[in-house]
Amino acid sequence: MTITEPTKPLAISLGDPAGIGPEIIARAWTAREDARLAPFFVAGGRNVLTQVAREMDADIPIIAIEDVADATAAFEDGLPVLGAPGCSWRPGEPDTEGAQLGYDSLKWATALAREGLAGGLVTGPIAKARLAEVGFSHPGQTEFVAYACGVDPGDAVMMLAGPSLRTVPITVHVPLADVPRLLSAELIERRAAIVARALRDDFGIAAPRLAITALNPHAGEEGRMGGEENAIIAPAVAALRARGIDATGPHPADALFAARSRENFDVAICMYHDQALIPLKTLDFDEGVNVTLGLPVIRTSPDHGTAFGIAGKGLAHPGAMIAAIRMAGKCAARRSRS
Amino acid sequence: MTITEPTKPLAISLGDPAGIGPEIIARAWTAREDARLAPFFVAGGRNVLTQVAREMDADIPIIAIEDVADATAAFEDGLPVLGAPGCSWRPGEPDTEGAQLGYDSLKWATALAREGLAGGLVTGPIAKARLAEVGFSHPGQTEFVAYACGVDPGDAVMMLAGPSLRTVPITVHVPLADVPRLLSAELIERRAAIVARALRDDFGIAAPRLAITALNPHAGEEGRMGGEENAIIAPAVAALRARGIDATGPHPADALFAARSRENFDVAICMYHDQALIPLKTLDFDEGVNVTLGLPVIRTSPDHGTAFGIAGKGLAHPGAMIAAIRMAGKCAARRSRS
Repeated sequence: MTITEPTKPLAISLGDPAGIGPEIIARAWTAREDARLAPFFVAGGRNVLTQVAREMDADIPIIAIEDVADATAAFEDGLPVLGAPGCSWRPGEPDTEGAQLGYDSLKWATALAREGLAGGLVTGPIAKARLAEVGFSHPGQTEFVAYACGVDPGDAVMMLAGPSLRTVPITVHVPLADVPRLLSAELIERRAAIVARALRDDFGIAAPRLAITALNPHAGEEGRMGGEENAIIAPAVAALRARGIDATGPHPADALFAARSRENFDVAICMYHDQALIPLKTLDFDEGVNVTLGLPVIRTSPDHGTAFGIAGKGLAHPGAMIAAIRMAGKCAARRSRS
Repeated sequence: MTITEPTKPLAISLGDPAGIGPEIIARAWTAREDARLAPFFVAGGRNVLTQVAREMDADIPIIAIEDVADATAAFEDGLPVLGAPGCSWRPGEPDTEGAQLGYDSLKWATALAREGLAGGLVTGPIAKARLAEVGFSHPGQTEFVAYACGVDPGDAVMMLAGPSLRTVPITVHVPLADVPRLLSAELIERRAAIVARALRDDFGIAAPRLAITALNPHAGEEGRMGGEENAIIAPAVAALRARGIDATGPHPADALFAARSRENFDVAICMYHDQALIPLKTLDFDEGVNVTLGLPVIRTSPDHGTAFGIAGKGLAHPGAMIAAIRMAGKCAARRSRS
């Protein structure tokens, strides 16, 4: 046995300060012991977090740190925040100043993870339309992080994970009508292989079982209700199996997520957004984590948006942020041991 | 107050005798008191049921009746079966003789419900490919029952119902690629209006709340990920509201089925098969009932197939059949009071 180095702290990006990001980060700090969270710090936004903490009924000291190396020690006593104060806090009222702070925090946290100073990256929720106003030109944070790490965004794979289920949508933010022509055996094979490797390396599953969904009702009923199963999905399953990956399918998607069926796989590889997201949010709404696989850095995120409408009202559920931090910490510990 | 007539017994069709239909019907009889089931009888297949009962560890007397009017009294003492013995039982081995018996049972049970001798119809699972061999030319039992009742199959609407959720797919057994062009505001309005009326009349919900789903991820994000929300679904919602129906949407489908969200509607009107069936089977796999709305007769069915692979092995879960019988009984009681 080798003695392993202590895991480096996780970098959290603030998200849009007008959304629920700051308050769920602060709540996560209060849950650090019960949820056994690895130490983390926030990249920027000290003013915002100080104001948020003041509004909350919990005692949350905000600790300014100058160096990532100080985060782990500071984490015992309060929520460590790196860098300059940032802007003021106006919950529910997004503006350009806040969008810029959110973007800066994302860039900074990503850079610290990429350079290995932070053990992983957890991103707070942003509003894409707001970020676009301050020059953000990526479809979402996932693509930004891939870009910042020098990875083809097509090889950064989104996985949704909750206590009940893990799912991966092969196509994501596209019209449903475009899904059939965007699917190919190559695309499914490439993304599923990234998932299999990440589940092994980052999630500690020695031989991950991948259930590949069908596109059509009843898996197409032998071609009577659609041909993509025979033409595209079954060949992808065969190619994955030929590579030694435990892939099965195409499975009719409707019955795949029932409790007994879920015991038979570690991740469901789905053909489109709602096929992956409906079962995940139906079962694990408050604890859904968005994980990006295939990156040199560990990156997780709560699977929800900024929720401007409830920001600052004490209504935001911190479950998904807590789950995202816990998952990033576990993956980081595995990487530091390997 | 008027004194109401006792509800007429429900007619159950056997399903394919080689499938799990006969055994789950027999198990439902043993559960009649705990599940508070209305009296029911099986149309045909006495030999099959006698053999099934003999194989089971429960004491299930099979009582031959000559007249539907005798069913309710006989139901106390055993499972009433109407008519001739039928064929013998070979579980897991479907054949033409069995398919013919299943078809005859369906025709007979439907006729008894249509003529008002039975209070409603519960259909056991059949295999479409087998039935086709004996001259059945309908896409499924739902369309057959509509045809037998003189209703346009387009106005017979399939609803899936479980303890957690009710959903209706607007398009059903078609390739996913065909869904966008098959949707229209008129189709959604027509089917949703049938659902609203049936929930009021047969399910006792005075002002049913209909949640209409979006087709595209994030409800199309204001047209950036698909135009059907603005072009088709929102106009259907508006038309339904103009008719006094409490319809809302288009709702992003992924978050609609989370527990807190489900409190806000009585039925989700979905755009395609898996969008409706994934949440239903994820939450209520063993208790899913398929109800046909818009017919002059009450018709329910367990939401599963013949399961030839486990027939006769004592493994079949009777939950969905029990739920189908209970639901048919409740709807029949409401109609008999009105």
